[in-house]
Amino acid sequence: MSYELYYWPSIQGRGEFVRLALEDAGADYVDVWRGAGMEGSMPAIATGTPSFAPPCLRDGDIVVGQTAAILLHLGPKLGLAPDDDKGRLWTHQIQLTISDFVNETHDTHHPLGPGRYYDEQKPEALARAREFRDARMPKFLDWFEAILTRNTAGGGYLVGAAVTYADLSLFQVVDGLLYAFPTRMAGLMGNYPKIAALHRAVGERPRLKAYLASDRRLAFNEDGLFRHYPELDA
Amino acid sequence: MSYELYYWPSIQGRGEFVRLALEDAGADYVDVWRGAGMEGSMPAIATGTPSFAPPCLRDGDIVVGQTAAILLHLGPKLGLAPDDDKGRLWTHQIQLTISDFVNETHDTHHPLGPGRYYDEQKPEALARAREFRDARMPKFLDWFEAILTRNTAGGGYLVGAAVTYADLSLFQVVDGLLYAFPTRMAGLMGNYPKIAALHRAVGERPRLKAYLASDRRLAFNEDGLFRHYPELDA
Repeated sequence: MSYELYYWPSIQGRGEFVRLALEDAGADYVDVWRGAGMEGSMPAIATGTPSFAPPCLRDGDIVVGQTAAILLHLGPKLGLAPDDDKGRLWTHQIQLTISDFVNETHDTHHPLGPGRYYDEQKPEALARAREFRDARMPKFLDWFEAILTRNTAGGGYLVGAAVTYADLSLFQVVDGLLYAFPTRMAGLMGNYPKIAALHRAVGERPRLKAYLASDRRLAFNEDGLFRHYPELDA
Repeated sequence: MSYELYYWPSIQGRGEFVRLALEDAGADYVDVWRGAGMEGSMPAIATGTPSFAPPCLRDGDIVVGQTAAILLHLGPKLGLAPDDDKGRLWTHQIQLTISDFVNETHDTHHPLGPGRYYDEQKPEALARAREFRDARMPKFLDWFEAILTRNTAGGGYLVGAAVTYADLSLFQVVDGLLYAFPTRMAGLMGNYPKIAALHRAVGERPRLKAYLASDRRLAFNEDGLFRHYPELDA
């Protein structure tokens, strides 16, 4: 039976972290809201486990929301999590730190909250983006580089010697930051050779490479998490 | 062997969600940084699973960071999670939604980011807090009331018929909001009888009641997540 993913059909957003895992595993899934005219109708309403917001995944009689919880559930089933509980917990801890990084990226263009357009909060966005570029981006990237350095299992992954969903998610964050903050990233990424190598390697994984070149991969745009506003990358 | 919790010794903050679980279970734990002069030294440095930020928990040879991941690990061990995988995933999904709510609460006093003091971002905080009070607080509280209503297992808990760490965390959020936004909460909570009942019931659990009355329970203050700035509650 197919997995069903429920997420906004016009942005990568948080759903993309789930899409990458499903695509890399070659899983049978339906991106339900894409072109189906069903946008906004989540199956969770009927299940007793409603999601506060998309993305939401249905896997048989399990309906789960929250990106990190979806990946916690899918990881072992897709072969994208370690076999042992300790490794799975560490992978999840990394994923939650990626969630924090993504939230702070989002806040650069929405410092006053999700209820206003970017154009209504531009001066505040300039201030928030400056701190993000100067302090928060290096702080997060330092941490990811450090744990990649500390993992001596070989292969260049975040956890152990095999790919996990956290690697795919870190790929997505780097890809998004390269889109949103190309100037800052050009200055920074030389400090992070292991992150850069992981980003390259994940993008070359055969199924993901095919996905990224397909029309299933939505383009980054200024409705998503990672937005390219040149003034925020100054 | 005792659990070791590593968290800032002067605020409830994110560590409090872990403290409540440990206290409710009557677990043997050490709040390492409190009065020990070891503030800032995390054990994770030596373990290969370093935390990006506190809180961090050591449980034997497991060292785990990220509040929700700590609770995912502790829940079953403390008898604060359902027995089945499906129930545990749902509990975790709720916890991650609580994390989102907490993050947005924090952003009311730090809309321009964590690197500046509140006094350096007051006009922006006024704007962000207005949206939080008007739109975000009801949206989150509506969701929690809805899932409490939907759970017909009896007992008034979020998941099934027994208490989980998510119930303790929702107690803490309500407690924090009552401290930070007393005016707004006075106007809102009449709409949320099930949340109010859960808050009362958790606060009366014998071990938690003793903890809350003890000097182990730090007072809310204006260095933590939940800050009472009357101008943000106007």
